[in-house]
Parts: sequence; structure tokens; C-alpha cells
Amino acid sequence: MSINGSKLLMKTLIENGVEVCFGNPGTSEMHLVDAIAKTDQMKGILGLFEGVVTGAADGYARMARKPAATLLHLGPGLANGAANIHNAQRARSPMINIIGQHALDHLQYESPLKSDVEAIASPFSDHVKTTTDVNELSADTATAIAAANGVVGKIASLIVPADIAWSETDNAKVVKATQVIADTASNALLEQAIDWLGSEKTTALLIDDACLFGEALVNAGRIARATGATLLCPTFYARAQRGAGTVPVLRIPYFAEDATAALESFQQVILIGSRVPVSFFAYPGKPSWLLPDGCDIMTLTEQDQDSPQALKRLAAALKVSAGDYDAHPSQLPEVPQGPLTPESAAACIARHMPVDSIVVDEGITSSFPAYSITAGAARHDWLTVTGGSIGQGLPAAVGCAVACPNRKVISLEGDGSAMYTVQALWTMANQDLDITVVLYANHSYKILNVEMIRVGVEAPSPKASEMLEIEGPCLDWVALTTGMGLPVSEATTAAEFEEQFAKAMAAKGPQLIIATVSKEL
Amino acid sequence: MSINGSKLLMKTLIENGVEVCFGNPGTSEMHLVDAIAKTDQMKGILGLFEGVVTGAADGYARMARKPAATLLHLGPGLANGAANIHNAQRARSPMINIIGQHALDHLQYESPLKSDVEAIASPFSDHVKTTTDVNELSADTATAIAAANGVVGKIASLIVPADIAWSETDNAKVVKATQVIADTASNALLEQAIDWLGSEKTTALLIDDACLFGEALVNAGRIARATGATLLCPTFYARAQRGAGTVPVLRIPYFAEDATAALESFQQVILIGSRVPVSFFAYPGKPSWLLPDGCDIMTLTEQDQDSPQALKRLAAALKVSAGDYDAHPSQLPEVPQGPLTPESAAACIARHMPVDSIVVDEGITSSFPAYSITAGAARHDWLTVTGGSIGQGLPAAVGCAVACPNRKVISLEGDGSAMYTVQALWTMANQDLDITVVLYANHSYKILNVEMIRVGVEAPSPKASEMLEIEGPCLDWVALTTGMGLPVSEATTAAEFEEQFAKAMAAKGPQLIIATVSKEL
Repeated sequence: MSINGSKLLMKTLIENGVEVCFGNPGTSEMHLVDAIAKTDQMKGILGLFEGVVTGAADGYARMARKPAATLLHLGPGLANGAANIHNAQRARSPMINIIGQHALDHLQYESPLKSDVEAIASPFSDHVKTTTDVNELSADTATAIAAANGVVGKIASLIVPADIAWSETDNAKVVKATQVIADTASNALLEQAIDWLGSEKTTALLIDDACLFGEALVNAGRIARATGATLLCPTFYARAQRGAGTVPVLRIPYFAEDATAALESFQQVILIGSRVPVSFFAYPGKPSWLLPDGCDIMTLTEQDQDSPQALKRLAAALKVSAGDYDAHPSQLPEVPQGPLTPESAAACIARHMPVDSIVVDEGITSSFPAYSITAGAARHDWLTVTGGSIGQGLPAAVGCAVACPNRKVISLEGDGSAMYTVQALWTMANQDLDITVVLYANHSYKILNVEMIRVGVEAPSPKASEMLEIEGPCLDWVALTTGMGLPVSEATTAAEFEEQFAKAMAAKGPQLIIATVSKEL
Repeated sequence: MSINGSKLLMKTLIENGVEVCFGNPGTSEMHLVDAIAKTDQMKGILGLFEGVVTGAADGYARMARKPAATLLHLGPGLANGAANIHNAQRARSPMINIIGQHALDHLQYESPLKSDVEAIASPFSDHVKTTTDVNELSADTATAIAAANGVVGKIASLIVPADIAWSETDNAKVVKATQVIADTASNALLEQAIDWLGSEKTTALLIDDACLFGEALVNAGRIARATGATLLCPTFYARAQRGAGTVPVLRIPYFAEDATAALESFQQVILIGSRVPVSFFAYPGKPSWLLPDGCDIMTLTEQDQDSPQALKRLAAALKVSAGDYDAHPSQLPEVPQGPLTPESAAACIARHMPVDSIVVDEGITSSFPAYSITAGAARHDWLTVTGGSIGQGLPAAVGCAVACPNRKVISLEGDGSAMYTVQALWTMANQDLDITVVLYANHSYKILNVEMIRVGVEAPSPKASEMLEIEGPCLDWVALTTGMGLPVSEATTAAEFEEQFAKAMAAKGPQLIIATVSKEL
């Protein structure tokens, strides 16, 4: 019995555990859409812009710990999604991009949408393949899944020409993806780490990725308690478990001078699946390197090795596999009073976020105080903009809610940030996702006003401000949110925000709360 | 006297006639923003998403006949703008992309926003250069301008590391861009074209780019009238002059079978700065090639040659340089009655569009009838989505209005199309641009419903429709437009649309009219 390429591709995804496809298709992907519709287990979710699609796949992968597929329309559709693929790659999120291409025979012509899809995909992909024979499509799909779905996630881009998608094959055999077994730390490195942890020197363990939650984080906590080492994590990471009862980890501050101060006491740093910390941007006359002079560095595991396994062995070698660890106490702020500020909003959030909520933080300057204020809130996961490309927050919240339908997703968004992929609000409504967006409205790219001074320019002139402020007109977020079909409320005092946020946490479904904060605060 | 790189770059742009910069900057571009602010003649215009920035630069270049600069934040910011750069490249619009990059010394580290900017730019650029010495920045800028600003426009991407932007140089000399002189048709080819035009065979001249307006179009009309040849243009072109008093040109239809029918009588086609027509997409079992079997083809000029000059010489050789040409008569439809449909909306548009208005058409199925119905309307320019990447219309309208502040811009948009770069509405309000957006609301990717059947899939199943319809919820365009700060009105009958559109044409400033049309029509 024959089957067309599109249906074989979907079967291959499903039989390898890929069961969600976020998409924004075009004509060349119509057979793939039909195949999604005819593959019962495959969930197809529409985004009205491709950055929503790829950002959602990133959020999904971070929480589901397995890849979603994306469906993108040729080179330009891929390009529209590339910024959030960049963020996903930096998050080490597995992702399978299914990218349409013209039928192979059509590529000899200079039609309007012709583009070099492989060249566009390559800077953002760990694996790129164009399938040119429908009989190889299942194998190519399985190879892409294996490439994406290693111990650390990778970006696999599978380009499917329209004629491969519509051609029939008699070879309906579905290929299973090979399981990638990652290696872990060598015994010699493990011994060295044990030596370092036993020394008199002030030592930090810099952990990332899968070491930031679950059993791996607990093992890191046991090692830290037993040895006196400090646990550090990068400023921007994919996902960390935080809050009451979890192991505290010091997040390296964003601004280089704060980071340098936070790191100045360390004489030794052990990198576990993480990189040497460097500043986010360069600033005139300031070093990018953040560790103190003379600080020794060792790499226990590289980022593509099995770091949780290394922590487990380290804990075992230190005989603390069942040991105690310092857990953050439950600490809830008082009910805030007065005007709504980033700090008072954060207090309300900390007070009401339910256990195992998922916080997607792209609030930039406005959500900055929320990180410390929520440290003793109910246990939760916190997700950041790993690649620094803004427009990731709302889409990632979509993906988190799809991956974890029984957990509350809290999306902290700046108004400037939200605009890049504002179309995500529609998908939240369309899929009735349990997401509360806190939209900080300060009508400014406030971070750029700060950064302009920090890079050595004086405070922005009036003409420069025209490129840094979202005023004239101010965006009306009640209207924008309503336009996308979401319930919306607006808070201008701490008391209003407290009431609205508490109510949102007790309810189900998507909604947006405008937190009106001054850009002067 | 020393000057920093950013200010030198802006001076070089200004002294070479580049006086508008559409931008969405980040930290690494703060010195460039400061330099825009301190360069009196440079106009800086903010877009809240990079696709707005690049699409605006495309629209600007099509109407101003010279490049704008864009200011983009590193690789991901460039990627966000790439789809509209693709459209601009296909429009042969000149464009100078100024793309930030980390300071050179910072690139040794794996910071979150590190990316291979050159690799991201290359698939969408004709010229790519990273400046690595501030003393070369003016020369590199001039080279980029020369690359962009030839006889046909090109995409030049100049990557400016932050330290090049902030470093001082004592060499403040501004380099002038060299003028590119394009060659034109050889005498031999001109003789051949004259032979073909004098033959008994049914002959078409397929013209594009700068041959579609002004004196070149008039010359084409003279040649056509004198020889009986038919003037053709591609389905998607950058800009064509149309309406009463202009030379009629037959636009090749979009659907392959319609195109084949339109072209079947031609025995000879002379390509003048244009390519052989092929179908937009491939369809199973249908040829991409649209010309009839046995049709002879000659290329008088390639796309990067001076085609208007070739037409001028051809007219001179045929002794019709001052000859008559067939001009489209003025033909205005009657006041439409009854429900609002794409046809009745088109009739209202044709009746009221002022002379020399600029129509940016991304209405897809909904604006389809407007093309023929406006053929006898007041003289105007019509712009299309040259690269087929949707999300070009609203940004291009911004650019047109900036380039031509005294001309009315009419943006015909589908609701699905508008969502890709909906942020453009804010820039229209922010810059108080004289744009009337006609937003056709059918709550569907209607073209994909059509295409799904055309590619051989049956009509979309309910589950497939979930990826093709923008329902559940329907977008509320009154709210969305209000949210962006634009006046909005809504028409559900032909009489309402007639009144609202007439009023918009008589007024100044940005506004949006929702044309509620059924997707069933």
C-alpha cells in the first residue's frame, strides 16, 4: 500500500515521540498540513507569525524535554522564525524544523519565493538536510530527530520539497531514530574536581541546562553543602527550578560590573556543562571576562556531555548521594501598598504564584526585581531569553502551556519586548492556554536608555529618544489584547495588581494584566 | 579633529544621498543611534519589529528611487528583517543594511547574542562586508552604497562592530560612492529585436522594473503601438504606473493555468530586463513553464542592464521617439450597491483614489478584483509583493509615505497578511503618514484554502482548517488598530465602504478601514 511523503513524515515523527507541530504553512506545505490533519496523534497549532511558531517549539522543548516540530514556509518563513531558533539553540532545546521548499523541478527557475533554504537554515541549525527522494524521507526524518534529540538538544532542519511531500512511495516503513548516548566526565576529571572541592580555596560550581532542576540540582545542592562550594548559574539559562524547598543557585548578574563583583571572591570555578562567564555585551574600556585574575578554571563536563550523570557520580564519590542539602525557605513578601512598581508587582507575583508554576521572563528592566523577590515563593520553574533575542517570551509561554497543560504559566513581558511577536496572544486564545501575561507598560525601551549611558554616550538627546521610546502614540494594551481575543485587566496601584493577579492565579485560561509602571522608576 | 565611527558613517550616508534610516536598535547600536540624532539631515524612524524596518526601506526605495539605510541589531535582528529583504532583493530595491555586531574583541567569547552575521546576511545580500578598522569605515560605507545603488538596486549589508562604531578616528574624510554605469543592449541584439518586431509573428515585450513607469513605459507604449506587439509584465513587480492616460500592460496572471491561457497566442517574446515567466509554485503534474511550446525567446537586456535606455534606442530606431501610444481611457465604475465584496470594494477604490496615489497591494484573494477594476482609475503607482513573502504590505506603505509625503498611499491588506508585520501600524501613527489601509477581514488564509485543492489535496478537513482559518477567536481589527493609535472605521456594505473610503481620500493622515468580506465570496 502506498503512502505519500507527508503522511510518512508525520508517522515517523509520531513513532519517534514527536507529537506537536507548531506551524505557519504556505502553498508548498499543503500536503503536510493535510497529513497533520490525518495523523490522529499529531497536534497542529497555528501561529500567525513564524517567530511564534519557533518560540513556542522552544518553550515546549524546555518543559516537555523532547522536541516539537515546526512547519515553516520556504526560506522567508524560516527567516521569520530564525531569531527564536537562535534562542532555542542557545537554550539547547531540541527542535525539528520541517521547512517547505519548491518542488525540485521548479527550482531551476527564478520564481519569486526561490531561496537557498539550506544557507538560511545553516547559521541557526546543528543539522540541515534536504530530502530529494521520497524513499529516503522517513530515514531523513529519523536522522533529524536523532540529531535534535541528544543529551543536549540541537536544532535539526529538514527541508522537504513540495514534490517529496506529495509523492507516493510503496516503502511505508517508518525508521526509528537512533538513541544518542552521551559520554560524561572522565575519571581523571572527576578526581580533579574532588581535589578542588576539598581544597582550601573558595570554589564555585557553575552549572547549566539539565543540572538546574530535578535530581541533578539536588545532587549539586548536596555537593555544595558537603564541600562549602557555591552553586552558580549563567545569567541566561533555559530553565531553573527555584522557590521554597529548592536548592538556591546564585545567578550571575547581567551588568558586567555587578557580575564582576559577584564573582570576585572565587579562586576556583568548576564548569559543569557550562561555559566561562563573559559579559553579555562589550562596553568601551571594560573587559568582557568576568572572573577575577588568577581564578583557576576546570571543565568537568562540556555542554554536550551528560552533566547530571557527572553530578551524580561526584555526589557518590563524596558519599552524599542521599545527603542533605540547603533548601530555600518559604518566604513570602507582605501585601504591597502604594503605587505599582516593578518591586510591588513582584511582591504580588511571589505571593500568589502557585506551586509548579512556570515563569517565562522577558520583562527586562521591569521584571528585574521579580527574580530575587520570588526566591522564596512556591516552587516553580523560571525560563529566560537564552539567546538574548527579544520576542521569545510570549511564544515560549505558548509552548510551555502546551507541554504542561496542568501547570500555570506566568509570562512576564515588557511592552517593547511583547511587540516583536505580539501575534502569540492570538494562539493563547485559540488554544485556550492557561497563561497569565503580566505586561509591564512603561512605553519605553528602558533598557536601551540605560545602556546608552553605559556604553559611554551621554543620556539620549530628544531626537535619539524618538528611537528608544514607544510613545506618540502610546500602545493601548487593553485594545491590543482585546483585539487578539484575550481577557485583559489593568492595574495602576499595588492593591489593584494584587487583586487581579490573585484572581488570575485562581482561574484557568489565558488572560493579560497590564502593569502600568513608570519608566522613571 | 577626531570623529567617532558612527558619526563618520552617518556623514558618509548623507553625503552620498542616503537620508532616511529605518531602525530597531539594541545595545550594540547605541552609538549609531546617537549619531543619527546628531546628524541633522538624517531622519531616523523606529519600527517596533525588524520586518517593519526592512519592508519600509523597500517601499521607500521603490518610490524614492534611491536607498534608505536600515539599522538592525546583530544576527537575530537581521534575521527578523530578512523576509522583507528577500522581497526587496526581488524588487531590485537598493538597500543599505547597517547591522550591529559585538565589539571585535568580544567575539572570541560565546556570549548569548553571538552569531555569524555575515552568514545570516549572505543569502539575502548582494554585498556583505564587516568593517574591522574605523579608518576604513567611510570607504566601506561608500562601497556599500555603490553596491546597492546601481542601475538596478541591490542589497548591501554593512556589519559594524560596536567598537568600530564607538572608536574615534582622526581621518574624518568622507568617501564618495562611485557611480555605477550600467551597460545596455548590444547593437546586434537591438537589430534582432527590430527584426522580431517587424515579423509576422505574434510578439510580446516582457518588461519589468524601471520600464514600468515614466518615460520608459511611454517608449514601450510607442513601440507596441508602432509594431503591434503586446506589452507584458510579471505577476509580481516592484512598481508600475497604471490608470487613465497611462500605457496598458498585461500583467501575467497568478494561477498557472490562467497564465498559460494568457500567453498561449505568443510566438515570440522579447525579454527586456525581465526573466522568462514561470509559475509561482509548482503543482503536481503541471508544468512550471508558462510560455507555449515553440515560442521563441530573446533577451534584449538582462535585469542588471539599462533597460529604459534600450527601450529609448529601440523607439529611436523605429522612429517613434515622439510617437503616439495607446493610453488607457478614464473609466470609473458606478457606485456599487449591496453587500461589501472584493468587487464592490474595488469599485469604491477605483472611484476615489486620487491622481498619483500609491497602491501597495497585499490583499491576496480579497484585492484580486481591484487590479482590473482600477485600470481606468486616476493615474497611480501599483506595488506588489515581489518576493512572495507575506508581511511586506504595511511596512512598504510606511516607506512609500516617507518617500512621497505629498502622495496618498493606499495599502490593500488581507487580515492574515497584515498580522505578520502588524507593528507597522504604530509607525504609521508615530510618523503621521498619509496612508489609508484597507483591511479585508475574511478571517481566513483564503488563498491556502484555494491552493490546498489546487495542489491536489481534497478540500481542507476540519482539523486542517484549524491551520488555515483565523477564527476562534476572530481578530478584532477595531481594537487592534485602536491599540496601535490609528483611527479606524468598519464597513460591511458597499455604501458604507464608499462613504468611508471617499472620506479617507479627502483627508490627510493615517487611518484604517475594515472591509468586512465573506471568505465564501
